[in-house]
Amino acid sequence: MLLIEGFQPTRLQSDQSRPPFKTSLFDGKPIDHPGTDTVDTDELTYAVDRLIRDGGVKVLTTTGSFGEFHTLLWDEHKKLIEATVAAVKKRVPLFVGCTNLNPREAIRQAKFAQEVGADGLLLGVPFYYQATVDNAVQFYHDVAEALPKMGVMIYHNPTHHRVTIPVGAFKKITDKPNIVGMKDSHRAPLQFVELCNLTKGKMSIFVNQTQMFPYYQLGAAGCWSFNVWMGPSPVVALRDACLAQDWEAAKQICLDLEGLNRVGPNIGNLTWRENVFKLSVNEAGYCTAGPLRAPWRIIPQEVKDNSKKIAGYWKGLCEKYPMAAEQARKTA
Amino acid sequence: MLLIEGFQPTRLQSDQSRPPFKTSLFDGKPIDHPGTDTVDTDELTYAVDRLIRDGGVKVLTTTGSFGEFHTLLWDEHKKLIEATVAAVKKRVPLFVGCTNLNPREAIRQAKFAQEVGADGLLLGVPFYYQATVDNAVQFYHDVAEALPKMGVMIYHNPTHHRVTIPVGAFKKITDKPNIVGMKDSHRAPLQFVELCNLTKGKMSIFVNQTQMFPYYQLGAAGCWSFNVWMGPSPVVALRDACLAQDWEAAKQICLDLEGLNRVGPNIGNLTWRENVFKLSVNEAGYCTAGPLRAPWRIIPQEVKDNSKKIAGYWKGLCEKYPMAAEQARKTA
Amino acid sequence: MLLIEGFQPTRLQSDQSRPPFKTSLFDGKPIDHPGTDTVDTDELTYAVDRLIRDGGVKVLTTTGSFGEFHTLLWDEHKKLIEATVAAVKKRVPLFVGCTNLNPREAIRQAKFAQEVGADGLLLGVPFYYQATVDNAVQFYHDVAEALPKMGVMIYHNPTHHRVTIPVGAFKKITDKPNIVGMKDSHRAPLQFVELCNLTKGKMSIFVNQTQMFPYYQLGAAGCWSFNVWMGPSPVVALRDACLAQDWEAAKQICLDLEGLNRVGPNIGNLTWRENVFKLSVNEAGYCTAGPLRAPWRIIPQEVKDNSKKIAGYWKGLCEKYPMAAEQARKTA
Amino acid sequence: MLLIEGFQPTRLQSDQSRPPFKTSLFDGKPIDHPGTDTVDTDELTYAVDRLIRDGGVKVLTTTGSFGEFHTLLWDEHKKLIEATVAAVKKRVPLFVGCTNLNPREAIRQAKFAQEVGADGLLLGVPFYYQATVDNAVQFYHDVAEALPKMGVMIYHNPTHHRVTIPVGAFKKITDKPNIVGMKDSHRAPLQFVELCNLTKGKMSIFVNQTQMFPYYQLGAAGCWSFNVWMGPSPVVALRDACLAQDWEAAKQICLDLEGLNRVGPNIGNLTWRENVFKLSVNEAGYCTAGPLRAPWRIIPQEVKDNSKKIAGYWKGLCEKYPMAAEQARKTA
Repeated sequence: MLLIEGFQPTRLQSDQSRPPFKTSLFDGKPIDHPGTDTVDTDELTYAVDRLIRDGGVKVLTTTGSFGEFHTLLWDEHKKLIEATVAAVKKRVPLFVGCTNLNPREAIRQAKFAQEVGADGLLLGVPFYYQATVDNAVQFYHDVAEALPKMGVMIYHNPTHHRVTIPVGAFKKITDKPNIVGMKDSHRAPLQFVELCNLTKGKMSIFVNQTQMFPYYQLGAAGCWSFNVWMGPSPVVALRDACLAQDWEAAKQICLDLEGLNRVGPNIGNLTWRENVFKLSVNEAGYCTAGPLRAPWRIIPQEVKDNSKKIAGYWKGLCEKYPMAAEQARKTA
Repeated sequence: MLLIEGFQPTRLQSDQSRPPFKTSLFDGKPIDHPGTDTVDTDELTYAVDRLIRDGGVKVLTTTGSFGEFHTLLWDEHKKLIEATVAAVKKRVPLFVGCTNLNPREAIRQAKFAQEVGADGLLLGVPFYYQATVDNAVQFYHDVAEALPKMGVMIYHNPTHHRVTIPVGAFKKITDKPNIVGMKDSHRAPLQFVELCNLTKGKMSIFVNQTQMFPYYQLGAAGCWSFNVWMGPSPVVALRDACLAQDWEAAKQICLDLEGLNRVGPNIGNLTWRENVFKLSVNEAGYCTAGPLRAPWRIIPQEVKDNSKKIAGYWKGLCEKYPMAAEQARKTA
Repeated sequence: MLLIEGFQPTRLQSDQSRPPFKTSLFDGKPIDHPGTDTVDTDELTYAVDRLIRDGGVKVLTTTGSFGEFHTLLWDEHKKLIEATVAAVKKRVPLFVGCTNLNPREAIRQAKFAQEVGADGLLLGVPFYYQATVDNAVQFYHDVAEALPKMGVMIYHNPTHHRVTIPVGAFKKITDKPNIVGMKDSHRAPLQFVELCNLTKGKMSIFVNQTQMFPYYQLGAAGCWSFNVWMGPSPVVALRDACLAQDWEAAKQICLDLEGLNRVGPNIGNLTWRENVFKLSVNEAGYCTAGPLRAPWRIIPQEVKDNSKKIAGYWKGLCEKYPMAAEQARKTA
Repeated sequence: MLLIEGFQPTRLQSDQSRPPFKTSLFDGKPIDHPGTDTVDTDELTYAVDRLIRDGGVKVLTTTGSFGEFHTLLWDEHKKLIEATVAAVKKRVPLFVGCTNLNPREAIRQAKFAQEVGADGLLLGVPFYYQATVDNAVQFYHDVAEALPKMGVMIYHNPTHHRVTIPVGAFKKITDKPNIVGMKDSHRAPLQFVELCNLTKGKMSIFVNQTQMFPYYQLGAAGCWSFNVWMGPSPVVALRDACLAQDWEAAKQICLDLEGLNRVGPNIGNLTWRENVFKLSVNEAGYCTAGPLRAPWRIIPQEVKDNSKKIAGYWKGLCEKYPMAAEQARKTA
């Protein structure tokens, strides 16, 4: 019920011992652009394992927007997939992101992911041109047919992928039984009800963490979160509140999560939307995401400041919503 | 003074003799998506050679939006680059497109292009997120530094690449002497004057074919065109009119070229903008572009009809503005 | 709990007996533009009285977008206000629309409304330029101060009035105790929770009829509807379901109401958004709205067809959700 | 050839002797909102007369966006029309702005303007909803028919009036011989050529002052300007350069005029676009525009600062492009 969007630890230029993590280690300095081996698989292994042991994760996805499918060389991407498969150890289903401008390349990458042991794909439509709805549906069908043993999770991101797949299209999309899920935060409540009616028993729809109230009541399977890489307990608390049908608690946690977007100016600005949150992972100390990759070479002071404010706010949430004793024991 | 945007002949599934070209050969059927070797280098060689011999081409670029950088596997892209270098035979400068979401991948591709003999790059900014102006400038500087012997032509495409690089930014961009050109059709006349003032002696600015009047008078180095793959003579006539400073003729040709966008409904629609013109190449008979690649699997009848209307209109222009006798002799 | 947006019966050019209403009487013919006395106060009186007697209406508003504040001469508007006051007979609170480009004119109109007995105002921000949030708040404060005995209902319409008033602004807006309500359908659920938290005990927030599920649960005071002029029973049924906390029923009615927007192509198109629903009132036969006023002089066939489809669909809803026996008796 | 957009001097609350004008008199304090007689006809008379005597003005228009048709009570508007007619004394044609949400109200206002001696109308389409092209054309035809002796100048403002009237529509618009002009700054050069071809001999097209180069060469009748209320000489110099076909001079003046929009941050921001220029009139000292009217009650410091910078920059332009000796003599 909790879908985690993977992140990509960037390899540091010099050797660094991980714990204890030093806050503000990078000070926003972006990675040197000519590097060609920038995935820190040790840190990735550490972080993935820690998150799974801390509980709550039911599905792990990699290399969406936050996970930077778009800044990796293919050799790096392969290394990332292999390391993640190894770190997950089949404890939860793993959906590998292979969103691409080019559908044939996406399928090529998906085949690699399948060969090395991933369970499924996280996949946005090719977006250089705005897709027609027909071709968006066809794309998901083509991939699902080409990889019939892989689960396909639709990555619905109208802002970046230029198209809103209308609710009505899911009647046809669900013809392929291995299209099993969607990450989607772009529906008004009534639309969401219709979406759930059309996909019931076929697809699990995951909403943004701040939407669990009231979308879980409306039929969401759970939520996705990339803030959990700053510590998962607030989102685990939200999940538990929803499972317990404690809507007042769920509402309050969602309001608290939403507050994250207001701790500084212009958080949500399209240019830095996910990037500021990557930097905040470095500040929060749960694990290390590393510096930004090119093309984010020049980082405004406002973004650096916001990443610190975000981490501070999240640490406050972790104190307000601590890990349950049982969980804490498990991970000790 | 005439910049040609390369196109990508798609390999046909069955053997086809090229001349005589059969109109409506493909009937809009898209290429089978699982193919992994879809660049028809024979046709590419034929078309590039024919166009250069017919005259007018002063710069050839490949794999922009029309040239489908976004639908090719890297192995195909390499083959395309090699074949184009071989076909051009240094008769005109060749700028290879390597626009990419990932700057490091763009540089990797650019290095390949350099190794096999290309003269320069056609390059849009990484566009998954909207670039800040600072990072857009930095990106072009990074590439220019990494490939100091290659000419860099900026591919300015605000619609697809999400950012308008403001005129003021060119003061800094031109610090790198190997940033030598830009393909740009997004400036009001007065802005264009300012742009030319800032880039004078450093960069050549190419506008859209329909903008030659009056932008050539304002300082444009020439125009780009992908319609020339339906026959170059109307655009060559436009170039000649401008060189002769026959502005009435230039204006009329521009009006005629603009008419191309009105021969059918919704030409200019973002989804099909360049694709309908690729299909029209097949209809016009000057060379063969082949069917569309994935993700354009389902093609509306309107698009198929428009491609025929476009080709018909262009053939009319070729009759109105025929190749000069001298040229015709050369290519006989 | 049910807010009705008033409509404006347009006077017919020739004499017409009202009942029995003849379907398709106007056939979309717009009113002759030079008329200067186009408000049919007899029909207005009949329709307002019928709707109040049929039950469900708790607040009546006039002359919003659907009610055409923008197409009336001031002499007509005055006549409309007086006739509506007389028709309502204080049975429900009456909020008169005086949205205007010019705040001083809005206040002037509001004073007239107060003098002739209206209870409050329905008021959008001046929208020729996009208002700053500060000036939007100031505007509502200025009006509330100028008319301290009138209730002010904010008409929040970001599409037409160019500004979204952010939730945070309501902390200050509610300083004036006579700002008592808002018509608002532009908040995601969590935002709506925040809005209700900020306005609790001070303002009643009315959502669109299709949002009652789940916004009523989240704190909405009720919904607004202009479709009730085709017969109120579906919306009254929705209200009753919400009062009874029968959420499954409420959800189904909302889905049915939402279906209204899909009975034909391009319903929702900004140009005709409210106008097609005015025409559909004429087709449904509950009361008569009359032809469109200028500037809607040329009405596409699609709009005319849609108005018939909308009326047909609504009559189906009225059969599915008939008026309760008790109500039917009252209005017999 | 120079179209001046009228401005509206706002009456000051206290008595003020006009010359010598005191810079920063108002310090951005907006006018008290309850006033109902806010047009300073003395200042209007002074300013209109001065501008006409200084030369260059060939057409005067009133109450467009800059001239605030949208903030005036009708009684004020009437007073403004009468005072302007009296001040112009038939020295130049006077086109009175009566843009309105309501076409019948626009015609009513236009009739008043005709009765008191205006020569024509400046008229944008009713814009509460986006007009269809058909209805936009019909609107201009309706007004032209209702006032056959008045010249109609189309006020084309896609940003505020929500619709771009396509070039093709002017074939029909020009059917009415008293539609004689358009204020339009929204065409690319080639479109403008087409527009001029369609309207030749029927309509005069006025572009923005910064577009005179190169649009005057393309067929513009002249330009409009509201900056002339800070002193007309730079725009008169531009006109003279164009008449003399001195394109280098015209280009340079246009570049200088364009610089006005960059003297401070966010000039051009939709909210303050014309308002900051109204405030700058007060700072420049050529005449007095007075404070802003409601709804501009709270003015950000940035706007106040920009108005001073604009005035300073313009005064520099007036020194660079002084009034010709002959003109100076006339107005001495």
